[in-house]
Amino acid sequence: MPTPERIRADLRSLLDPAQVIDDPAVLARTRRDTWVISVWRSLQDGSEDAPACVVRPSSTAEVSSVLAYASREHVAVVPFGAGSGVCGAVLAPEHSVIVDLGGMRALKHIDEVSLLATVEPGLLGSEFEAALNQAGYSMGHFPQSIALSSVGGWVATRAAGQFSTKYGNIENMLVAFEAVLPNGEIVRTRSIPRAATGQDLRHLFLGAEGTTGILTELTYEIHPLAPATEKQAVAFSSMRTGLEGLRRILRAGWRPAVLRLYDEIEAGRSFAGAANAGESLLLILTEGPPELVAAEIAGATRIATEIGGRVLGSEPVDSWMHHRNSVPGFEYFLKQGMIVDTIEVASTWERIDELYTGVLAGMRAVPGLIVASGHSSHSYGTGTNIYFTFAGRPNSAEELEELYFRIWGAAMEATLAAGGTISHHHGIGRVRREWLVKELGSAYPLLGRLRRALDPLGIMNPGALLPESGSSQ
Amino acid sequence: MPTPERIRADLRSLLDPAQVIDDPAVLARTRRDTWVISVWRSLQDGSEDAPACVVRPSSTAEVSSVLAYASREHVAVVPFGAGSGVCGAVLAPEHSVIVDLGGMRALKHIDEVSLLATVEPGLLGSEFEAALNQAGYSMGHFPQSIALSSVGGWVATRAAGQFSTKYGNIENMLVAFEAVLPNGEIVRTRSIPRAATGQDLRHLFLGAEGTTGILTELTYEIHPLAPATEKQAVAFSSMRTGLEGLRRILRAGWRPAVLRLYDEIEAGRSFAGAANAGESLLLILTEGPPELVAAEIAGATRIATEIGGRVLGSEPVDSWMHHRNSVPGFEYFLKQGMIVDTIEVASTWERIDELYTGVLAGMRAVPGLIVASGHSSHSYGTGTNIYFTFAGRPNSAEELEELYFRIWGAAMEATLAAGGTISHHHGIGRVRREWLVKELGSAYPLLGRLRRALDPLGIMNPGALLPESGSSQ
Repeated sequence: MPTPERIRADLRSLLDPAQVIDDPAVLARTRRDTWVISVWRSLQDGSEDAPACVVRPSSTAEVSSVLAYASREHVAVVPFGAGSGVCGAVLAPEHSVIVDLGGMRALKHIDEVSLLATVEPGLLGSEFEAALNQAGYSMGHFPQSIALSSVGGWVATRAAGQFSTKYGNIENMLVAFEAVLPNGEIVRTRSIPRAATGQDLRHLFLGAEGTTGILTELTYEIHPLAPATEKQAVAFSSMRTGLEGLRRILRAGWRPAVLRLYDEIEAGRSFAGAANAGESLLLILTEGPPELVAAEIAGATRIATEIGGRVLGSEPVDSWMHHRNSVPGFEYFLKQGMIVDTIEVASTWERIDELYTGVLAGMRAVPGLIVASGHSSHSYGTGTNIYFTFAGRPNSAEELEELYFRIWGAAMEATLAAGGTISHHHGIGRVRREWLVKELGSAYPLLGRLRRALDPLGIMNPGALLPESGSSQ
Repeated sequence: MPTPERIRADLRSLLDPAQVIDDPAVLARTRRDTWVISVWRSLQDGSEDAPACVVRPSSTAEVSSVLAYASREHVAVVPFGAGSGVCGAVLAPEHSVIVDLGGMRALKHIDEVSLLATVEPGLLGSEFEAALNQAGYSMGHFPQSIALSSVGGWVATRAAGQFSTKYGNIENMLVAFEAVLPNGEIVRTRSIPRAATGQDLRHLFLGAEGTTGILTELTYEIHPLAPATEKQAVAFSSMRTGLEGLRRILRAGWRPAVLRLYDEIEAGRSFAGAANAGESLLLILTEGPPELVAAEIAGATRIATEIGGRVLGSEPVDSWMHHRNSVPGFEYFLKQGMIVDTIEVASTWERIDELYTGVLAGMRAVPGLIVASGHSSHSYGTGTNIYFTFAGRPNSAEELEELYFRIWGAAMEATLAAGGTISHHHGIGRVRREWLVKELGSAYPLLGRLRRALDPLGIMNPGALLPESGSSQ
């Protein structure tokens, strides 16, 4: 493997030298994502691995020439979108090359007849959505990170947004892509509504966390801005009853854009005037044609009241819409000696109460945990997710990481015990890696086979998703 | 490679000898699917390849031992569900082993809380749906072949059903699976509503046409029987106007279960009393909660009339519901010296009229074509499919295949020229193989990489989907 100096020199001969950056501030910004442990370690000013450089390609051809070089020289490559991931999928190893896609952020085309928008991967979600809104459209994809995450990163992590019950998750929105394989080969698919032409190749990249190549163009389905919206909040006597209300709304065939159910702790924290002590709180938002939203809000509200829900009107939903993306950063808590994180998992309706109570009990049994709570934010006919938030306070800075991993371990084990999935939409990165094999079991080696099929040299984002060797067996 | 006699003897030592069959009648029934060219060739009593035998496993363990044996001895394996495919994906090579899954047809479990049903792959669709109906549920999947196709074959071909606009296609219904890899390894995934745990492994098997292993268990999402249904038929002055009506209904956000638009030839043939000469005919069926279906039928009908649609009431929809799965078999026409087939393709709304007119013009330019027509049966926000039917009469039996492949070639080339996909839901098999590389272009080698990752020896269903070598490069 070449030295870092040699890597930089080689890349400067391939690209404009100004695109090959080793400025420490740029490296610091792109060598990791927003995993709280990476944030913590960088605050500690500890000994971090030193990537060789950051490159900022401006075209697919440039991405291709960088990857072809990296393959030839066996150099590790770390794709970087906007760095909003929270699982450690970006953590550039020693002497690796970070490919920062922030130089590729064009909105290339909107097809208003077929409802398609084609974008480069580095565009931020909020920039994309604002441009679509200007033209009278929306993507219908609203991750809390929309202002911090890139449209390419959404595919890599299998993102989900707040309006997912109506518009689906990222795999339901991606129509076509262009990608550069680890060997530099450029592949493109065509925009078609649906096909039966062998395996669906989008799924080689959806959820791959950058281990199968670099996406250089994405075509997403878009929607005309909805002409009508209706909102309703409902309080239930417990989280269990609220989950049952959710399940019945889905079972009846309703698919409002937003269904969010907060447990008593979160309802008390964020909607104190609305929910009474001990109550869970459900937010419903439906959008679409006026006749549909009128029918849907009436139907969903009736189902909720049938099992004892107390109707609260639209104000809690308006309040959530206003504040929905404002969350304090991890640093704020770390500087106060606390560690805060979120863990989103999912299970079937049959076992979701077991998952909810089991994960909370598991986390609360860890000494040092201060508070843990959860809400459901993405529901399906077959089940729902729970998005847990916890805060812990270690006895000392030295014990912070141990406390963190013990709380995570308790949540992961309880999730698996309840038949759930260890990640609903944040992905694996590094924080969940050791539990991935437990979730997938006999199917786990298939991920390694896939990775080796696309990246036999193991140069792409080593250490993310699977162990460094690229082998899963 | 062992001789057929040796293969039969070996398999009889692994299984109950009665499960290893070389009765010519059984071989004739399972050595091919319903591709019209296979039907034609078997009527001709020509020289067909002779598979070694058919095995009928009754368990996953037996499938595993057969595949482990086949891998060890480099014997080709052809999975057989119910044989309803129409593209030649099943066409057992000389000395191959056909694995007939008709001995594995249990409905193992219905989870009424999480709306999941777990089945073995050989169960027929109509048997499955009838059992679900008994319990108060439906899968919402109604391929025309429902009485002839197996629940495992649906995954292998990426099936679509008549109610797809509401319930989605097979990839939206499959929740979990068990499969045996070509080396005999058994893999299982868990039933979860959605996950971000690396690539979605269902997509290694969806559309693989039996080239990556054998599915031995499937868990599907189900739905309570819909409490309400509304129907409406609308006539438009042309196919072009009808396609615009379809597009506008989808664009407005409506998703009725059924949207079918017949061109003037098919409307005249099947709905003569309803549509006038030259008119296209749209069938709308919505089902779900009463408030939803009332809103949806009103909303969709209003949009259709806004562009000049003539409202006809529900009778044409009732008539279609009654006759929808009755079609004459290919043999009926072959015995009259004609060849009839269907070709389902798809494109975006922007280019669907170009595709519709281009494919018809291409087919009609082939001497010997008698009639060609089409309807749209699966619509999306971004586009729709066209399901073409053609009939041709060759000058002589010797020219039948040449005529057939010329008509197919004209349809495929016109589809590709209009930016479409060569298959919406029937798959590739053998009939579309040579055009697959033209559709996928730079992405085509990815299919070969996937196949080799799961079946490095190339024993699984060789010749289906990709060329025999298993290589796509």
